[in-house]
Order: sequence, then C-alpha cells, then structure tokens
Amino acid sequence: MAVIVQKFGGTSVGDLERIARAATRVKGAVEAGYQVAVVVSAMAGETDRLVGFVNETDPGHDRREYDAVVASGEQVTAGLMALALQRIGVPARSFQGWQVPIITDDIHGRARVSEVRPENLQACLDTSTVPVVTGFQGVTPSGRVSTLGRGGSDLSAVVLAAALGAERCDIYTDVDGVYTCDPRIVAKARKLDKITYEEMLEMASQGAKVLHTRSVATAMNHRVRLQVLSTFTGAPGTLVVDEDEIVEQQVVSGIAYSRDDAKITMVGLPDRPGVAAALFGPLAANDINVDMIIQNISDDGERTDLTFTVAKGDLSRALKMLEDNNDSLGAARIEPDSRVVKVSVIGVGMRSHAGVAGTMFQALADKGINIQLISTSEIKISVLISEDYLELALRALHTAYGLDAAE
Amino acid sequence: MAVIVQKFGGTSVGDLERIARAATRVKGAVEAGYQVAVVVSAMAGETDRLVGFVNETDPGHDRREYDAVVASGEQVTAGLMALALQRIGVPARSFQGWQVPIITDDIHGRARVSEVRPENLQACLDTSTVPVVTGFQGVTPSGRVSTLGRGGSDLSAVVLAAALGAERCDIYTDVDGVYTCDPRIVAKARKLDKITYEEMLEMASQGAKVLHTRSVATAMNHRVRLQVLSTFTGAPGTLVVDEDEIVEQQVVSGIAYSRDDAKITMVGLPDRPGVAAALFGPLAANDINVDMIIQNISDDGERTDLTFTVAKGDLSRALKMLEDNNDSLGAARIEPDSRVVKVSVIGVGMRSHAGVAGTMFQALADKGINIQLISTSEIKISVLISEDYLELALRALHTAYGLDAAE
Repeated sequence: MAVIVQKFGGTSVGDLERIARAATRVKGAVEAGYQVAVVVSAMAGETDRLVGFVNETDPGHDRREYDAVVASGEQVTAGLMALALQRIGVPARSFQGWQVPIITDDIHGRARVSEVRPENLQACLDTSTVPVVTGFQGVTPSGRVSTLGRGGSDLSAVVLAAALGAERCDIYTDVDGVYTCDPRIVAKARKLDKITYEEMLEMASQGAKVLHTRSVATAMNHRVRLQVLSTFTGAPGTLVVDEDEIVEQQVVSGIAYSRDDAKITMVGLPDRPGVAAALFGPLAANDINVDMIIQNISDDGERTDLTFTVAKGDLSRALKMLEDNNDSLGAARIEPDSRVVKVSVIGVGMRSHAGVAGTMFQALADKGINIQLISTSEIKISVLISEDYLELALRALHTAYGLDAAE
Repeated sequence: MAVIVQKFGGTSVGDLERIARAATRVKGAVEAGYQVAVVVSAMAGETDRLVGFVNETDPGHDRREYDAVVASGEQVTAGLMALALQRIGVPARSFQGWQVPIITDDIHGRARVSEVRPENLQACLDTSTVPVVTGFQGVTPSGRVSTLGRGGSDLSAVVLAAALGAERCDIYTDVDGVYTCDPRIVAKARKLDKITYEEMLEMASQGAKVLHTRSVATAMNHRVRLQVLSTFTGAPGTLVVDEDEIVEQQVVSGIAYSRDDAKITMVGLPDRPGVAAALFGPLAANDINVDMIIQNISDDGERTDLTFTVAKGDLSRALKMLEDNNDSLGAARIEPDSRVVKVSVIGVGMRSHAGVAGTMFQALADKGINIQLISTSEIKISVLISEDYLELALRALHTAYGLDAAE
C-alpha cells in the first residue's frame, strides 16, 4: 500500500475550524487508498507567542530550554489533529519527536536530523491508524527536545517521507502552488504544474518563500517527490520532481526576487594583490556571507572600486568591521546602499539554450533599468537593481521569457 | 546535602513576572545550602484553554490525545522557570515527565504513578543544577504522555520528594498556609503552624481546597514532610507532619465545609430486608458515591424514610436512576434537596478526648441550627445543615472549640 505524507503549515491549522478542514484532506487521501502520515506545525502565531515568552524571560537564553518551550506548540496541534481525525471516523494518534523517534544532533534551535526510525510509524500505519507527527522537533541522543529551525516542519515531512519510502510528500499551505513569479506583483504569473528540484532550490534560495532550501535540498537528496498545494482549495498544486519527469521543459521556469540584500561599495581601494582577501577574510570569519561581487577595472593601475552584497541584517555589522579595518584596507570611501533588490531568472533549460542572459539584459535595458551587479550559476542569472524598478523589471522579464498566462 | 522539593502552582507561575519571583524562592533555598528540585504547574488559565480546545475538537475525546495536548502547559512553564533561574545565576534545566521518567499506569487523564526513577534528577542535583520538572504529567510503559488528574502537580512534587528522599516538600501557592477555618468566612481563623497528615487528609476530603487528598495520602504513606506556604510572602507556612512532631495537640485542629453535597430523601420506603442494597447497589454500580446515610426508625414496622447525600454533580443522574427503579423500590416520594452544606470538625485529639461531639451539637443548638445528618470517623464529626446557616455555624463552632485568634 502506498504511503503519502501530508504536512499542514501554521495557517492551515491556525484555529480549530481549520484543523477540522485539514482533517478532511487526510480523510480524502485515506479513502483514496493511501496509508497517510501527517506532519503539523504549531497553530499560526503560537510559536511567536512562545518565543516571546522565552526572550522576555532571558534574552541570552539557553537554547535547550528555548527548544523545550517552543516545541510545545506542535504538540498541541498534533493532539488536536488526531482528535479531529478520530471525530470524522479516521483512526489516528499523535507522535512527538521523541516518540517517533526523530533523532537529531544537539545543535539546539537549528538541529540537523541524523536518523528517523520508521518502525513505530510503520506499525501505526499497518493498523490503519494515521500517525500525526509534530513537525519542527526532534530529540537529541541524550534525550532532550530539539527544534530544526526555520522551515523545520517542511523538513520533518520530507525526512519522514524518505524514511517511510513515501510515494509523495504533500506540503499543504496557504497558496495553491509555486508560481512563475510572485502573483501579487505580476498579475500574469502562472502556477507551475511541475518544477525540478534544482529550480526549486534556486527559487527558494533567491527569495521565493513557499519552501525552504533545506527541505528542497533534502527532498532532492532522497528523491522525495514534493507537492505544494492549498489546504483551502484542495486542488492539485505544483510537483517538485526529477528533471526526467518533466517532458516539455521551459528555458526559464520562474523569476524570483529578494529584498534581503544590501550593497557596499569600497571606493578607491588600492589595486594590489591580497586586498580582496584582507577585505573578505574578516567578514567570513564573522559569519557575514558575501553574495555578489564586482571589481571595476582600474583606470590607472593604482586605485579600483569594489562592490559586493551582504544580507541586509548584516549590513551595519559589516560596515563597522570595514570601517574599523580601513586603515589597512585604504579605501577612500565606503558607500552602503540598502535600496536594492536582487532579481533572478531560473531554469534548467539554460544548460542547453544560449541567449538567456542576453534576453534578460535586453529586456531590462529596454525599460531603462540599470544593472548594478550580476551573478550566474548553471541554471540561474541574478542581477542587482534599484528597488524602485522591482515591479517593472519582474513584469518585463516575465513577458520577455514567454511566461505570461494566456489572457 | 539535604534535598528539598519546591512546587509552584498555577497562580504562582501565572505570568513571566511571577515565574521570576518564584525563581527567587528557589535561589533562596539554594543559597541556604539545599539541593533543590522544582515542580511547576501550567500558567494559570493555560490548562483550561487547552482543555477547551480538546473539548471543542472532539467532545467524546480519546483521553490519550487529551493528555498529549493538555500536558504541554507544564512543559512551557518548566522551560521558562529553568531560564528564569539561569538568568539569576542558578544553573537549571527542565525535565518533562518522560525525561525523568515518572512512570504511570495507562489510565489516561487520571493516571497513577507506578515508579519514579530518581537517577537522572539526582545526577542533575549532583552537578549543582536545579531540575525543573513538569508537574501533572508522566509517561506510560508504552511511551505515551499521561496526566495525573486534579491536583496532579502536588502529587508530582510528593512522589519526587519521596524518590529523592527529600527533607521537605514545599507547596507554594496563593495562600500562606492551612487555616483553622476558611478566613474569608471566619475572620478569627488562625494559620496553623503544624497539622498532622490524618487531619490534613480529613480537611482536604471534607472540603478544604488547599491540598488534594491524593497528595496528602501519598505524603503520609511515604512520610514526606509537606509545607504549604505563599509564593508571594515567602513566610513560613503550615507543616503537614507526623503526629509525634506536634507537641501540644489541640483537640480540634480545624473546621472544614463543603457545598458539594446534595441530599436525597426516600419517603415511605417499605421497611424490609434488602431495600438498602436494592437502592444503593445500582448507584454504586454507576460510580455515584453515597456519603452520609440515615434511616429513620419505622413507626409501624412497614414504612420508613431513608436520607442520604451524593455529590451535587451526580444529583440529577442519581434521581433519574432512583425514579426509574422506584417501581421495585416502592418509595412514596423522592425528595431532593441541594440547599445543604456539610460542616466537619477535625482533630486527632478526639481519639483521647470525650465530649467533642457534644460541644458541636450544643453550639449548633444554641444558634437554633437543625442538624439533618451526622457522620463520624475517629478524628472527625460531620453534620449536614441548611446552607442558610453555613457562616453562622462555622463562626459558632470556631469559638466553641477555642480556635479563635487572640484579638
């Protein structure tokens, strides 16, 4: 009998009525002949409430106790979901992370899953009972509660699907799938029926919020077929699958954007060997990731400008470090700019199609949009532009790559 | 090094400020040289909120899932208390029931503790770390979360104190001890410095709310010295101890009352053998406890009146059963009366002093209060009276037994 894992996020279980509605999705899958394992998040807002308690009690908190407190939200939803299922005639029982067990390392607050033992869940499935598992949490080898960090419930669903050899892992959420672009900005954005793991990974890491990179990467590694779909409509969503499952591959599958970057320009930096190492070494040592980098060609062979991006949240820390070190770096000026956005076009078809970058640059130039920085990977081209042009750029690119929905 | 267990109830940990204040009580005991283990309830109101969720999701709920949901409240407080202790420099860590473990039977919702393994807690204490244990919850032999029912957190504290060989178990609450009578009614009520287990047990079972009978009985069986005291003042409270620890024993230690009883009179019941069995058998079979019973002397040897009390919550169910069975019982009338209260005078000194009952009856007669039913035990006399006379009766008895505080 085929197993599927269904995961319901915080808005999908945000109140008792929504939990009851989510339960009907589970019942539907059971009636369709599947063995179903369910993973639930905390009710929307509950985790924030608990995190608030922890921060107020002790701002420099012990992350082991943070985990013990915060993990309780999922425990409540799992019990309530089991009850909601029982009420509509579906035998069910809740499992906490330690009851499965989902074993993690002891990096509390952002633990990594080291092992999922499927025996208890499989025994439950084999008695036609739906196991309802707390997302987001696990247990350390020493028997303490751990949490998996942001997007942890999706990750729980993926690792359970892998451990159970599930046919599919359905991620129920408040949107009905993955779109070619953010439909709140691009009205002609289309829902994708399928997308490859690699593309989804780039979409997620370039700013699409629907799935976290960790979950997609884990699904890809274990070849777990993911589906993103809406709890509220129950209509088919977007399948995240292997490339060979997709017959007609578009050159560009989607356009992502991120407002999370800030730009720093080191003006008039001495153009000598080792300056980049002296600049980026200390940033890396302090966990400040640098994403895009461009170095201008030096006019006189003595001075050059160097521009790069960091996460907006790291900007002030990065600036302070650069200013503190500027005696040895020797830049004439350090210019920050946080009014920038990163726009990325993504598609595995780029591997075999030329001219994808040219189309992007031409479309932006046609709208008079200046490109400040560029970075590329095998299946992605990203540009940094002024935030003023975000909407214009997304719409122009969406049209240029033929992604617009038919009228 | 002597161990003490400190238990903080729901109002004592009702918000973050109160948790912080409770933490200072723990710190005080640590600084006084004790190894301290802490037991916490859920924040006041939290358990009710969770019970509400469960009842709304599935009124005929699976009690295993009820336990999984409801136990989460203590988990939150335990983590927060550990953090509050760390913040004021007291090393601490939280333990859930399964982490101790506190092993119970599988009667979910009102489980009985079968075993407490003290090794993990003792190891924690031996590293000068305060273990903060979730009250109210345990784990079944099959690894599911169980809860201990009403008053469960006190019971958790007592069983941990027994397992750790604690010198004392301090029950922190919102009153500053056990009183000779309810001070909201009897202004001259005095706080008792000491009370025996047997008296406390009778006080609790006769309506005093400060401790539950299960906790007192368990403390008595394991000879755990209990102290009831206020989180807010921190002043010495009332010690519940062995009789031989009390030097000057009063004849009567306290007066309890209960509004939880209702009276039923079977008027004109045929006076023949077996009628009591026919009446009380079905009640017992349906878990309806009968407390006080009186049968009038039959005038003519044919008909008699039989009066007894049941819990108010069971009254309508009891009446329905009696009416359904009255064809065979043959009472002329069934008269319920829920406007009654039970007043009890309690003291181990009764064993060796005569005239205690006489004092009670005289004091009530002097005020014109009619006694409807009487029951006695070795250290207790209870009477049922009209609820109109409750306050008058309590004050008269308090004075008659010399319990009034000095002016």
